Amino acid sequence: MVVVMAPDATDEQIAHVTERVEGVGGQAFVSRGVVRTIIGLVGDIESFHGLNLRTMPGVAAVHRISDPFKLVSRQHHPDRSTVWVGPAGHQVPIGPDTFTFIAGPCAVETASQTLEAAEMAKAAGASLLRGGAFKPRTSPYAFQGLGVKGLEILADVRETTGLPIVTEVVDARDVTVVAEHADMLQIGTRNMANFGLLQAAGESGKPVLLKRGMTATIEEWLMAAEYVAQRGNLDVVLCERGIRTFEPSTRNTLDISAVPVVQSISHLPIIVDPSHAGGRKDLVVPLSRAAIGVGADGVIVDVHPNPENALCDGPQALLGTELRELASAVRIMPPALGRVDAGERVRG
Amino acid sequence: MVVVMAPDATDEQIAHVTERVEGVGGQAFVSRGVVRTIIGLVGDIESFHGLNLRTMPGVAAVHRISDPFKLVSRQHHPDRSTVWVGPAGHQVPIGPDTFTFIAGPCAVETASQTLEAAEMAKAAGASLLRGGAFKPRTSPYAFQGLGVKGLEILADVRETTGLPIVTEVVDARDVTVVAEHADMLQIGTRNMANFGLLQAAGESGKPVLLKRGMTATIEEWLMAAEYVAQRGNLDVVLCERGIRTFEPSTRNTLDISAVPVVQSISHLPIIVDPSHAGGRKDLVVPLSRAAIGVGADGVIVDVHPNPENALCDGPQALLGTELRELASAVRIMPPALGRVDAGERVRG
Amino acid sequence: MVVVMAPDATDEQIAHVTERVEGVGGQAFVSRGVVRTIIGLVGDIESFHGLNLRTMPGVAAVHRISDPFKLVSRQHHPDRSTVWVGPAGHQVPIGPDTFTFIAGPCAVETASQTLEAAEMAKAAGASLLRGGAFKPRTSPYAFQGLGVKGLEILADVRETTGLPIVTEVVDARDVTVVAEHADMLQIGTRNMANFGLLQAAGESGKPVLLKRGMTATIEEWLMAAEYVAQRGNLDVVLCERGIRTFEPSTRNTLDISAVPVVQSISHLPIIVDPSHAGGRKDLVVPLSRAAIGVGADGVIVDVHPNPENALCDGPQALLGTELRELASAVRIMPPALGRVDAGERVRG
Amino acid sequence: MVVVMAPDATDEQIAHVTERVEGVGGQAFVSRGVVRTIIGLVGDIESFHGLNLRTMPGVAAVHRISDPFKLVSRQHHPDRSTVWVGPAGHQVPIGPDTFTFIAGPCAVETASQTLEAAEMAKAAGASLLRGGAFKPRTSPYAFQGLGVKGLEILADVRETTGLPIVTEVVDARDVTVVAEHADMLQIGTRNMANFGLLQAAGESGKPVLLKRGMTATIEEWLMAAEYVAQRGNLDVVLCERGIRTFEPSTRNTLDISAVPVVQSISHLPIIVDPSHAGGRKDLVVPLSRAAIGVGADGVIVDVHPNPENALCDGPQALLGTELRELASAVRIMPPALGRVDAGERVRG
Repeated sequence: MVVVMAPDATDEQIAHVTERVEGVGGQAFVSRGVVRTIIGLVGDIESFHGLNLRTMPGVAAVHRISDPFKLVSRQHHPDRSTVWVGPAGHQVPIGPDTFTFIAGPCAVETASQTLEAAEMAKAAGASLLRGGAFKPRTSPYAFQGLGVKGLEILADVRETTGLPIVTEVVDARDVTVVAEHADMLQIGTRNMANFGLLQAAGESGKPVLLKRGMTATIEEWLMAAEYVAQRGNLDVVLCERGIRTFEPSTRNTLDISAVPVVQSISHLPIIVDPSHAGGRKDLVVPLSRAAIGVGADGVIVDVHPNPENALCDGPQALLGTELRELASAVRIMPPALGRVDAGERVRG
Repeated sequence: MVVVMAPDATDEQIAHVTERVEGVGGQAFVSRGVVRTIIGLVGDIESFHGLNLRTMPGVAAVHRISDPFKLVSRQHHPDRSTVWVGPAGHQVPIGPDTFTFIAGPCAVETASQTLEAAEMAKAAGASLLRGGAFKPRTSPYAFQGLGVKGLEILADVRETTGLPIVTEVVDARDVTVVAEHADMLQIGTRNMANFGLLQAAGESGKPVLLKRGMTATIEEWLMAAEYVAQRGNLDVVLCERGIRTFEPSTRNTLDISAVPVVQSISHLPIIVDPSHAGGRKDLVVPLSRAAIGVGADGVIVDVHPNPENALCDGPQALLGTELRELASAVRIMPPALGRVDAGERVRG
Repeated sequence: MVVVMAPDATDEQIAHVTERVEGVGGQAFVSRGVVRTIIGLVGDIESFHGLNLRTMPGVAAVHRISDPFKLVSRQHHPDRSTVWVGPAGHQVPIGPDTFTFIAGPCAVETASQTLEAAEMAKAAGASLLRGGAFKPRTSPYAFQGLGVKGLEILADVRETTGLPIVTEVVDARDVTVVAEHADMLQIGTRNMANFGLLQAAGESGKPVLLKRGMTATIEEWLMAAEYVAQRGNLDVVLCERGIRTFEPSTRNTLDISAVPVVQSISHLPIIVDPSHAGGRKDLVVPLSRAAIGVGADGVIVDVHPNPENALCDGPQALLGTELRELASAVRIMPPALGRVDAGERVRG
Repeated sequence: MVVVMAPDATDEQIAHVTERVEGVGGQAFVSRGVVRTIIGLVGDIESFHGLNLRTMPGVAAVHRISDPFKLVSRQHHPDRSTVWVGPAGHQVPIGPDTFTFIAGPCAVETASQTLEAAEMAKAAGASLLRGGAFKPRTSPYAFQGLGVKGLEILADVRETTGLPIVTEVVDARDVTVVAEHADMLQIGTRNMANFGLLQAAGESGKPVLLKRGMTATIEEWLMAAEYVAQRGNLDVVLCERGIRTFEPSTRNTLDISAVPVVQSISHLPIIVDPSHAGGRKDLVVPLSRAAIGVGADGVIVDVHPNPENALCDGPQALLGTELRELASAVRIMPPALGRVDAGERVRG
């Protein structure tokens, strides 16, 4: 941590800072410049936070110089992690050596729609099935999902297709029931800073897919992952799904740079959701190709047997030609870049 | 709702749209232009949503032309509302005729700190006391609040000072206990889209202070208020607290225009939080004056007897000269603009 | 300047940094922490920029700790400046003791429309007339202004009304002709980083009204003012006019906090443009009141005798009731906050 | 164009709108809904703009439904264009069938540095050389480029290496001299809305590389291209280089979705600048791979023989291992996605 003093800071004010720092067991190195004095702090960062250095007289600014996350940081865990998703006997990897294709309907509507979508996903090469039973919706008048009945449908479809299930949980009170049915708990963009939910997911015993808040910085997102990890659960996969910007032609702006940035500072796997980022069916294939190119560990996309009748996000669901194009990209590109299809590395 | 067809849309595609609209009981008016055809829809908007018009072949765009919120809209409720906060016998108004000054510490730390802050607030002219017992923090390593013990301290301080209490609730599971102690439930910026929490607050029987999500549009914010209202609770006060932008010199950018924009489309009262918007003590007084000037129904500010030792947001807490300046602005400006101090309109 | 070394930086890498810094005449203070080493640099910042410290092996980050602007900074010029606008014998102040009301049509269309708008502005209490002869337009198919003929109309209207003229210049090649006719040169939001234009305006001998780029940080804006100042022209007035954000209900988001932030770090006057920020007529009066409340040194607003026929930005031009409300706010509020109307302090 | 009337609009107000529309030769189709009336306009959009429909009494909103750009639109020019860059006898294509790799130093500093960088670029597979002689800099105290001397160095290096030259022009007054030396004129991000410069470039007779304004929407960017095209120059290549967002870990956020979005509405080629978007050397290779994956028509990157001594943007310049990795990606990936290296399609 570095404390920058105001140009007119007095010697007493500088001494006050160093005394407070030393009072909590830290060391303070003072560098007096022509115009300003800066003080470098060495010691336990957490203890320095309690000092409210920014409120002290004569202090102009305080710069943090190390990352605030620990368990998810790559600093003490240099190798990138692999997270395994699925029941014992059929676990699908998400990690640095593989490319994991996850697909399914935005919302579970009926048993037949879900099964049909799952079969489309499987035929296209997906190793995991996504599908929402609990849906967070901006409007209280929109379809909110089938709830527990949706979970049961998903479990049945897993039985039939063999695809492990990724599904969203939107309320800490539902974590137990969702964890009973699902193989991976998704925390959605609107709940990325719902700390009670993050902690509950951390205690669930299931791997977590943590979507980036649509207005969260990468650091805040990793702090959210830290909430999960702190409860003993390091099986967290991050999912970049677009951030809110001024550009209106896409629903959100896919921050493709987040993939290598995250990989440079965290050991957690990271995948991309091109469907929700763009909100447009015609962008799913090119954005998936971009995700593969940039080095993502997987993609998660919406497919629906009949988008015109979808109860949720129909305009971005793939079928027909576009799904075949996507299947082709997912089959061809990752091997050219040194990755194996996750379906070929299932752990028995 | 207006459907814009692509330039190359066929007659069949146009007919398909009008048939689907008529199939759910709506009317479709077709205007054929030189380049494009547009179709105006008349009828029940909710039923049109289910059609996924954007997915239909030949459709280029769909424009919604009416507001999606209903209960909080000014359309069917043209008079602006007043919300009353406090126990029977001492209810403080927040509404169009008054100006309500709310102050207190960011976090409840100890009984004496809370009492001292409450007395500072009262001396400066505040009618309501704010103070956090449950704190949502970006870092799992930061102080998370005293919880129920903090609520008890707040209740004691209300006893002593007579100021009704506004305090945050961060988890749907805590709504009951918070509602037992507090006079108004605050939903914070990170939870604005925590729909389960909004619904629980809507059922609590207490008025709700709903902060804007730091990256929520005004429309999304009003939809969040609609979630509360839908559970039968129309006692919602909105609070503008800054939005996330690219400007780094303030923590967030106070969207001062949101006040008149909200007042033009919703009947709910709206106040401003200049402390959290700027994150800087030196901005609290000028931003409070801006809030009064723009026509806000109140302000909510952080005060602390000893900011250097505050466990939360010390750098923005007022005391001394700045608090006196704020007290002076709150006493002088609203009457000049036609508003009475809320403390003079307490309902017995 | 502070250099933060990577956790695994070697002693050689640290020595390399200090040698380079000392090689250009600076001093380097090394603080070795448990995890990281930080190096505080003291000396001439400009010379350090040439070192490309961020590219050196072992360097994790470089933090600048002083402001990059000099001539416009309040550091060596603590008193806030007053800029005088108008011909010898009738100079209107913009500065910390006064409130300056500037009004006029967005674009000069005809002599009679301009005169009529000027008389509206004067009757409402304006001391300076705004009006555009050269218009930068997003569309090449939109009205681009009358050019030199517009300047002549403005000069005639100044003759009739006595109001000094503020008008925009959009191209360095036009600075001379605009400076011949106008009393103050406006640099618009799209040209804030047009450095050739800034330098030409700096050499024009006329005061400059520098609008904030709609996506410029405050620091970048002050650097643009520094470009003008560097050519010997310190008569620069800043104008906050809204920044680009995700909120769609206003054209831009008025960053009202920019006023006190700028006043804390620069001695230049700062005014607010509520018309272009909101792009909505109904917001001009409340936003002007907010500007007065926050402590702005003036406002600049669009008025038009017949907005329905305006060739530019008709939807935001005031007339009738709203103009009377604005005139009233401008007359009553600033004195209550300690400012005199600029029209009463004209310098003969 | 669609006009949405307010819920309380009167029949007279509706009639007023239709009369004004018919008065300029348009047709107005009125659809009366339960709550609102909407009016669809058919005819010449430009003539409707002059009506200021938004200012008319009873009008709630006006929606534009067609794109405002024409010459650069794909609507009347469905085939995507190829732009040829270079002197007669050696013209390099940028277009839908090829992938064009452009590389060179951010700034021309010396003849030897430029030649060395050009040789690095050529060895890595580049077909065009970039290099700045006129540099727009945020700080007036930063290196502003060598000017005409820099152009002469570039021309000499073209002589030696055979690589056609892309270089920036920052002032309309310099267009002639830059066009005499360069093969393609670059308009930088800060000048995207410098309309005088766009028009001058449009008249220069040379192809134009138009970078996206860092805060421009895609529509505004295409309108800027329209300014160039309107002067008779359709040889415009667009360059996505990142937009300004709240995320601090990269200099700007590369809007990778802009590539397929632009390709769907404009026939102009579009390339990606991964160096300036991220501002970090370690992101150049992954972002270039993302650009290839998403379907960009090329990339433009910074290379420098000695980044530590670069006068401009040293931290993002490639050399050594990273340049080899980039060369490899550029050689292998485009053919796998159906594109030929532009260097193999040079037109004699």
